Amino acid sequence: MKIGLDVMGGDYAPQNTVLGAIETFYELQTDTKIILLGDQNKITEICRENGFDPGNFTIIHCSESINMDEHPVKAYKKKTDSGIVVGFNLLKEGKIDAFASAGNTGAMLAGSVYTLGPVAGIMRPCISAEVPMLNGKKMLILDVGFNSDSKPDVLYQFGILGSVYARTMMGVENPRVALLNIGVEEEKGNMVTREAYKLMSDSSDFNFVGNMEANNFFTGDIADVLVTDGFAGNIALKQAEGMYDLMQQLGIENRHIERFNYENYGGTPVLGISAPVIIGHGASSPTAISNMILQAERALRYKLTEKFKEALTNG
Amino acid sequence: MKIGLDVMGGDYAPQNTVLGAIETFYELQTDTKIILLGDQNKITEICRENGFDPGNFTIIHCSESINMDEHPVKAYKKKTDSGIVVGFNLLKEGKIDAFASAGNTGAMLAGSVYTLGPVAGIMRPCISAEVPMLNGKKMLILDVGFNSDSKPDVLYQFGILGSVYARTMMGVENPRVALLNIGVEEEKGNMVTREAYKLMSDSSDFNFVGNMEANNFFTGDIADVLVTDGFAGNIALKQAEGMYDLMQQLGIENRHIERFNYENYGGTPVLGISAPVIIGHGASSPTAISNMILQAERALRYKLTEKFKEALTNG
Repeated sequence: MKIGLDVMGGDYAPQNTVLGAIETFYELQTDTKIILLGDQNKITEICRENGFDPGNFTIIHCSESINMDEHPVKAYKKKTDSGIVVGFNLLKEGKIDAFASAGNTGAMLAGSVYTLGPVAGIMRPCISAEVPMLNGKKMLILDVGFNSDSKPDVLYQFGILGSVYARTMMGVENPRVALLNIGVEEEKGNMVTREAYKLMSDSSDFNFVGNMEANNFFTGDIADVLVTDGFAGNIALKQAEGMYDLMQQLGIENRHIERFNYENYGGTPVLGISAPVIIGHGASSPTAISNMILQAERALRYKLTEKFKEALTNG
Repeated sequence: MKIGLDVMGGDYAPQNTVLGAIETFYELQTDTKIILLGDQNKITEICRENGFDPGNFTIIHCSESINMDEHPVKAYKKKTDSGIVVGFNLLKEGKIDAFASAGNTGAMLAGSVYTLGPVAGIMRPCISAEVPMLNGKKMLILDVGFNSDSKPDVLYQFGILGSVYARTMMGVENPRVALLNIGVEEEKGNMVTREAYKLMSDSSDFNFVGNMEANNFFTGDIADVLVTDGFAGNIALKQAEGMYDLMQQLGIENRHIERFNYENYGGTPVLGISAPVIIGHGASSPTAISNMILQAERALRYKLTEKFKEALTNG
């Protein structure tokens, strides 16, 4: 299987991305190949500087790159020889099997929707993140920023996507799905969550365990999957980043807190589209890049996209 | 001035509430009186157990109390001799000047709106909280749970309320008002925040400094006032509580983190209504109760309600 990596994406690209690819090279199964998309000279140079044979990678030279602060859709349309656009085209043509970038998030989402497209039956693809829990496990939160306005039936479908992801990728047998809300009672919340609660409590598609309040975000072992719209989800996720920053600034070191280090974290998979796509944090370290590639490999091994298709067909 | 305290409200009432009132007694200015509303025998007993003369308080016996888990509006209508209902009636009649309770939040909001009513021109009163900042100051966040669906013009008015509060109660000369959002750019966010941004950026009523992302919640010194709807605001505030809980569970002690201890914190003032009302956390300690009473005293001294009225008249 072939995993494409946009080498020019991220605040510390191409240095961190190439180093991340080198780091993963030794971790991947033998039939997994990394395809690097970006400036061939720079890639070769960074490999050589680090005593690594660039011939271990397939390098596809791209003459352009989309910057972090460019308008995503405009840049995606215009920069057809950027790593992101080339990556999505290769993915669509089946020349690579998964694609990862720590670059412009909006451009990655544009490619996910416009070039690749959703799995049949999916109303709105979304992005997700795994939040460290105190018991050593993780909780998947989705959507974390793609759909800032989500209708109740879209939230319901996030429950399906999250449940499939947790079962397939996190090894949770019967994932507990909760709805992020401002009270545990059914009638609490805004118009959308009150309606979504009703849909979810009738669900036979997943194991709905009710509303979850944000004071349980860090400490509660209430849910394996936390469903929310992209506005509240983005706030919750970024506030967790802020918590990590606070600990850094206070000089507090702790093994559990270190799990929130978004520079090492890996990426947010785009869920509900027709191939594995992982978007990394702009500040991704080589370790984070490496983790993104490993995440993509696992998504392919565990046939995540096929599981989404099955769930939507059976539903 | 007379400050009413519902003695029966809170998870540890009446013990913590009476102890809190005793604690504040020595802190208040001489012309401030505390009026305790609740079970007279219990109040007298707790005072005596703690070597305090109950004659220092005015006690108004109330035969009922609204429980934490009762339906707020139903309970408020039915339990007319509860501390909360009696308190709002006294406040309306001008027999007390401010009112505080750590009891049923919904019932406190019902009283604020139905019995007391908003300041003329206020579309939606809201509740707020002061978040500790790293520089030792605080940031006011509003709404934190009253209006889970807020229209753009309501968010705009929260900017006015917050700005007046920060100037009057927090001593900030020209408060920086930010909008909680999922990106700093104008076009980021959901339908409501995008529209609110436009209104706010034209504002002459307050000093709008743009969008603020949640990763700055704990560490950024970006705003003195953070405006959001009651859904996202409640999530942000509760997640801060969750951060404190996490630190407790990890055994991390730190002077700054301790400022997030919601058991000691004080209360969330209801803003935009015609008298100072403070709602405490259910888990309030005696110190939190004491802080709520001091908060109410400051609101009266600094004529907070009058400042709201002026701002709405000038606007």
